[in-house]
Amino acid sequence: MHIEVNNMNNILQSVEGLNPELDFVDSYINEFLCTEEETGAVARVLSEVSNTRGKMIRPLLLLLAARFGPQYEPLRRQLCKLGAVIEIVHMASLIHDDIIDDSPLRRGRPTVQQKFGKDMAVFAGDFLISRVMYHLAKEGMSREALTIGQTIEKMCRGELGQMACRFDPDTAIEIYLSNIYNKTVILFIEAMQLGAVASGCDEATVRRLAAIGEHLGYMFQIRDDLLDFISDPAKEGKTVHKDFADGIYTLPVLYALDQPAYAKRLREIAGIESGSPHYGELLEEMQELVAQNGGIDYAWQEIKNHAEKARLKLAALPGNGGREGLNRLICQLLDQE
Amino acid sequence: MHIEVNNMNNILQSVEGLNPELDFVDSYINEFLCTEEETGAVARVLSEVSNTRGKMIRPLLLLLAARFGPQYEPLRRQLCKLGAVIEIVHMASLIHDDIIDDSPLRRGRPTVQQKFGKDMAVFAGDFLISRVMYHLAKEGMSREALTIGQTIEKMCRGELGQMACRFDPDTAIEIYLSNIYNKTVILFIEAMQLGAVASGCDEATVRRLAAIGEHLGYMFQIRDDLLDFISDPAKEGKTVHKDFADGIYTLPVLYALDQPAYAKRLREIAGIESGSPHYGELLEEMQELVAQNGGIDYAWQEIKNHAEKARLKLAALPGNGGREGLNRLICQLLDQE
Repeated sequence: MHIEVNNMNNILQSVEGLNPELDFVDSYINEFLCTEEETGAVARVLSEVSNTRGKMIRPLLLLLAARFGPQYEPLRRQLCKLGAVIEIVHMASLIHDDIIDDSPLRRGRPTVQQKFGKDMAVFAGDFLISRVMYHLAKEGMSREALTIGQTIEKMCRGELGQMACRFDPDTAIEIYLSNIYNKTVILFIEAMQLGAVASGCDEATVRRLAAIGEHLGYMFQIRDDLLDFISDPAKEGKTVHKDFADGIYTLPVLYALDQPAYAKRLREIAGIESGSPHYGELLEEMQELVAQNGGIDYAWQEIKNHAEKARLKLAALPGNGGREGLNRLICQLLDQE
Repeated sequence: MHIEVNNMNNILQSVEGLNPELDFVDSYINEFLCTEEETGAVARVLSEVSNTRGKMIRPLLLLLAARFGPQYEPLRRQLCKLGAVIEIVHMASLIHDDIIDDSPLRRGRPTVQQKFGKDMAVFAGDFLISRVMYHLAKEGMSREALTIGQTIEKMCRGELGQMACRFDPDTAIEIYLSNIYNKTVILFIEAMQLGAVASGCDEATVRRLAAIGEHLGYMFQIRDDLLDFISDPAKEGKTVHKDFADGIYTLPVLYALDQPAYAKRLREIAGIESGSPHYGELLEEMQELVAQNGGIDYAWQEIKNHAEKARLKLAALPGNGGREGLNRLICQLLDQE
């Protein structure tokens, strides 16, 4: 079984006209993370954090949503600052996630915790959150601080919820969906909403863009879960079947566990410790069982359903660079570029 | 060698007239940490966090400093809210600290990480910080958010700095002092400063109270370091010589390491792994060496020096309940009640 999911690292280049903005976001991130008094330890960790900069999909969403508002042009710099804040929140969550997941790699590079230890990683994440609080206060963005505070809270809730479900093969798909909503989707919604509100969109447009953000968030996370079934560590910077071995049962697995055919065997494998002999072979068997039970097709279909809904909502918005960019993003998440 | 350091758990009762305020602080903490949608995992962790409520020394400092301002009475509720915020910042730092220290106990109770795992502890701490950000924004306290953002950043810096010094017997005392300044003292200063500014103290009084907070912070932390040499786990909720075994060399040890007499043997012990046979006996020998080298006396003298400076600054302030309370706090930290 082969599943085609392309790497999205080049997603930025595919959305035309946003490169200057994303360069601004990038330099604001550097500015926000830079400190006058960088002593050895802090400076090394921060520089590593900066180097593991991601795809910047959240600032991209913020800027694309902002294109629908009348204030986009005059407020470009301000929007880029907000984009930097959203990305730093994401970076902090990645650092703390990696502690939980015990991930040695993130995007093919050693994680902060792998390189500096869990201890450093805890405080590096806290450091980023404190920077976000500081900069929002400094810029007088208390409305944004309010929603970002709530967003971080929900993200924690999602992580705690996911942890509570670990190694539980009876996790309901609704609970899984609620966990990924908090963990991932909410920040996609928040990015779109912040961009739309800041650029002066009317209420209906804000709501529509937030809804599109929700679909994109689900697409992104379910796709990320699928990547755990297919990715090549060298290419994607992730290791295969790590979620399953960690007891994190994602949509393909949970769907398969719900089908009577091979669910018994799948449960058996889930009950075997990851250190056991021939565990690698068991994971291959698990992959086959999930595929045979339709788990991968189901997850893929869910992505397509969200794409369709997002496209419908997008079609009702005026045609501009924002709409074009969001359509391209949907294509990328479907690998139909 | 016996060192008398009393438990400060009853410190609150000793400052008269502040019990109603501290009850308000307590109920604001509950209110700030309470959420409508408490699902199982989050609720359990938050309830545990609430139960490990500490001595509330930081809100106490804030309220005592506020007594010097003309706005104390009309702004009492607001000051209590600020006190709750400061205490939540402290609680978050404790949860993340315990991850680093691998502490099984905090004040005689199992730590969050011991009870729920490191993973839960990471997000429980993040959750508290996000709550702080949310509530400061909600109350329109952007000036306070600014300084608290900076404070959390410095606290991280202190923890990272302390980590960078682990197992390094050549750590200079100045570096140790700079680490505890960031890790602990800064939040004492911040508590005093927030209380003084919010209640409308003039600039000179704010500066004086902040300086007193600095002395109290050093007294508190050096005393806490001394507790690692003498505490009875049942009574104090701490385990003896844990800092040393973890490679965290505090003032008594660093001073002793600087004295030629027994420094060589002390270095040898520092180089032996904590899992080695008879490690307990080695720690007893270490304790003797530190005492013989004057490390404990030196640390104790430092506490007394800060007390003297704090008292001098306090004497220049008008006599009121705030001054009385701060004087009592100094006595408690000196065990001269």
